[in-house]
Amino acid sequence: MSSTAGQVIKCKAAVAWEAGKPLVIEEVEVAPPQENEVRLKILFTALCHSDVYFWEAKLKLKCPFILQGQKPLFPRIFGHEAGGIVESVGEGVTELKPGDHVLPIFTGECKECRHCKSAESNLCETLRFDNDRGHMLNDGKTRFSKNGQPIYHFLGTSTFSEYTVAHAGCVAKINPEAPLDKVCVLSCGVSTGMGATLNVAKPQKGQTVAVFGLGAVGLAACEGARMAGASRIIGVDLNPGRFDRAKNFGVTEFVNPKDHDKPVQQVIAEMTDGGVDRAVECTGSFQAMISAFECVHDGWGLAVLVGVPSKDDAFMTHPMNFLNERTVKGTIFGNYRPRSDIPARVEKYMNKELELDKFITHSVPFSEINKAFDYMLKGESLRCVIRMEA
Amino acid sequence: MSSTAGQVIKCKAAVAWEAGKPLVIEEVEVAPPQENEVRLKILFTALCHSDVYFWEAKLKLKCPFILQGQKPLFPRIFGHEAGGIVESVGEGVTELKPGDHVLPIFTGECKECRHCKSAESNLCETLRFDNDRGHMLNDGKTRFSKNGQPIYHFLGTSTFSEYTVAHAGCVAKINPEAPLDKVCVLSCGVSTGMGATLNVAKPQKGQTVAVFGLGAVGLAACEGARMAGASRIIGVDLNPGRFDRAKNFGVTEFVNPKDHDKPVQQVIAEMTDGGVDRAVECTGSFQAMISAFECVHDGWGLAVLVGVPSKDDAFMTHPMNFLNERTVKGTIFGNYRPRSDIPARVEKYMNKELELDKFITHSVPFSEINKAFDYMLKGESLRCVIRMEA
Ligand SMILES: NC(=O)c1ccc[n+]([C@@H]2O[C@H](COP(=O)([O-])OP(=O)(O)OC[C@H]3O[C@@H](n4cnc5c(N)ncnc54)[C@H](O)[C@@H]3O)[C@@H](O)[C@H]2O)c1
Ligand SMILES: NC(=O)c1ccc[n+]([C@@H]2O[C@H](COP(=O)([O-])OP(=O)(O)OC[C@H]3O[C@@H](n4cnc5c(N)ncnc54)[C@H](O)[C@@H]3O)[C@@H](O)[C@H]2O)c1
Ligand SMILES: [Zn+2]
Ligand SMILES: [Zn+2]
Ligand SMILES: [Zn+2]
Ligand SMILES: [Zn+2]
Repeated sequence: MSSTAGQVIKCKAAVAWEAGKPLVIEEVEVAPPQENEVRLKILFTALCHSDVYFWEAKLKLKCPFILQGQKPLFPRIFGHEAGGIVESVGEGVTELKPGDHVLPIFTGECKECRHCKSAESNLCETLRFDNDRGHMLNDGKTRFSKNGQPIYHFLGTSTFSEYTVAHAGCVAKINPEAPLDKVCVLSCGVSTGMGATLNVAKPQKGQTVAVFGLGAVGLAACEGARMAGASRIIGVDLNPGRFDRAKNFGVTEFVNPKDHDKPVQQVIAEMTDGGVDRAVECTGSFQAMISAFECVHDGWGLAVLVGVPSKDDAFMTHPMNFLNERTVKGTIFGNYRPRSDIPARVEKYMNKELELDKFITHSVPFSEINKAFDYMLKGESLRCVIRMEA
Repeated sequence: MSSTAGQVIKCKAAVAWEAGKPLVIEEVEVAPPQENEVRLKILFTALCHSDVYFWEAKLKLKCPFILQGQKPLFPRIFGHEAGGIVESVGEGVTELKPGDHVLPIFTGECKECRHCKSAESNLCETLRFDNDRGHMLNDGKTRFSKNGQPIYHFLGTSTFSEYTVAHAGCVAKINPEAPLDKVCVLSCGVSTGMGATLNVAKPQKGQTVAVFGLGAVGLAACEGARMAGASRIIGVDLNPGRFDRAKNFGVTEFVNPKDHDKPVQQVIAEMTDGGVDRAVECTGSFQAMISAFECVHDGWGLAVLVGVPSKDDAFMTHPMNFLNERTVKGTIFGNYRPRSDIPARVEKYMNKELELDKFITHSVPFSEINKAFDYMLKGESLRCVIRMEA
């Protein structure tokens, strides 16, 4: 039992007071974990493009059945790709204890609902991601505050804080020997991209794969295609600065849509005698989603969508493109189950079967967290790891 | 060798001289089959909605890579669901001989291209369906003419004629004991719908299935769901006259979108605690295609599109619907390979494992072929079988 258990912890957090404005490092209060919650000491956190979208707040996700339209929530503590150590646990938490090394994960696993019990879905009924929720499920309140003012959570993780509170179902317990400054990237981006290829697109050995977007998520998708034995991996990005580095992730050819005066799907179809076998979209651009679908081969082609769309986006295509036996589907977190699957991914890194270091291009101390946003917005970084302790 | 082999045959055909105008029974000339072609004596043919679309010619299919935009072709001989007997064969035809009982099929199988060799596709590279082609592949000419004026082919079958010429790769040789007035419906509609469920949607035992459109294709999809052991089969149609008959095809519940003031996908989601496991669209309406996709459950739901869309239709949905792990794909001819798979479907009918008679609601002599169009346009018939000989 740590000396802080049951107490409010005062610590530093990077607070987003307003949409699009630099984060401000503030002293905040972090309440103790409630039932089925844990409080984590975050050691390393990285920036994912999903943080940037909701920080920019130019969008509102809409989904007729699941997400409710809401106003962007501020002040808010972002961050969802991280590694840390359990500080204390709330009532009823049996699978985690203080001192455990963990990765908090933005979509949870209760292990009891029909999604968690189905072989096909990782979208836990209770703990699935919800970009629009700013509070904890237990009591509908926040665990963060400053001078009595509540500060909203993000994706149930809010890792841009020295301490955070998460639902125990959103926390994967991992090998304590794993270096948290490296394996933290398995907490979102790298697992998402690699899983999108390995678990969802599932290219067969020798097949061709196109990957749209060569950020960390897209390059992890490329790496997955390389591991699956793809014969050609076509990387597509609007930023030519992405191409050089991509070679280390198995990309064999590059296409910049800006270099062509015809739609990129047509360019790819011509390069591949009618289309690629698999496409994985990792951009968040709906145009890229449509291109990814339309560039797969008829008869058997499958496109997997990963990017987070904006509120007013529409996926639009002529139905003939389906009738010619193409398939499109989407995936959250590469279809991995956070608690059941991620510890084994960490082991793969420990056994050197999985490279993570090459995804980490930058590192800054917590005090310079806004630089991580700059690197991503300029398209310079894959992952910038933020060191909480220095 | 029949006495007509190698000769031009004069016979009756139902010619569509103009879009949307009643067919006219004319005496036409049918040239002998060329290399890899066969000439068939048609005994029975049925009307499918695809004939009606191209006869109405209100649409032009467009597909950026495959189909070329063209003017509607008239005069034309429609018809693609039929049973007949080989009259004579052209050079190089080894698998068919005069007297063989056959079903002509609108999409072919060369058995040599990469589609025919792939386990996943039935879209033969050379012989796949092409609504816009009005001539034979061999020489780019028609085998039909009247007083020297060429008459265009339709879907490589043109079965509204006492004799027709087809590519040998578009003809399935079947058990000569099978009654052609019944098994002719396996030549398109029933195979398409049943295959869409059994080969593509593949519901597991106990799963829920929604079928949009309760014509012959849709009811065959329902029948497939029943055979797969679906727990609930929800039939959706705008025509309430479709509901009574549908009970004989396993449909357990009916939804008429007109009866609700919210989108039908929402009605279905509410009936099924979040959505059906599988949906099969058999209407040709793009609104129904979108509804079919959006009514499947997140996490694992799969929608299969079968209906033939119009030129200016767009499939449009919010990308979040994909991200929540839904899948959509299309199918031609229920993913059956015409020559490899259809003879075994005929055997299933012969062994009483497959019911076909209930799909045939009407029958008319060839001279009254226009009645078949009326029955379909009024939504009264499933299949109307047209008897060529009486
Ligand atoms: N589905 C999930 O579970 C999940 C998880 C994590 C991230 N994401 C999403 O994945 C996407 C990628 O994340 P990231 O962190 O790698 O971002 P990133 O910004 O590092 O990389 C995105 C890349 O896409 C490129 N791009 C943008 N529009 C493009 C277009 N139209 N065509 C081609 N390339 C284009 C950009 O130039 C950039 O290189 C984001 O949308 C993010 O929100 C989804
Ligand atoms: N993909 C293929 O290989 C293939 C093969 C054969 C037929 N088809 C297509 O399948 C479709 C069905 O053919 P059919 O012969 O059974 O036609 P049909 O006219 O007998 O049946 C269609 C049914 O759909 C209903 N419908 C129309 N719009 C609807 C909507 N918005 N919502 C609900 N129901 C609606 C109609 O009322 C009708 O009952 C057609 O589009 C046809 O062209 C495709
Ligand atoms: Zn992320
Ligand atoms: Zn669950
Ligand atoms: Zn048909
Ligand atoms: Zn072929």
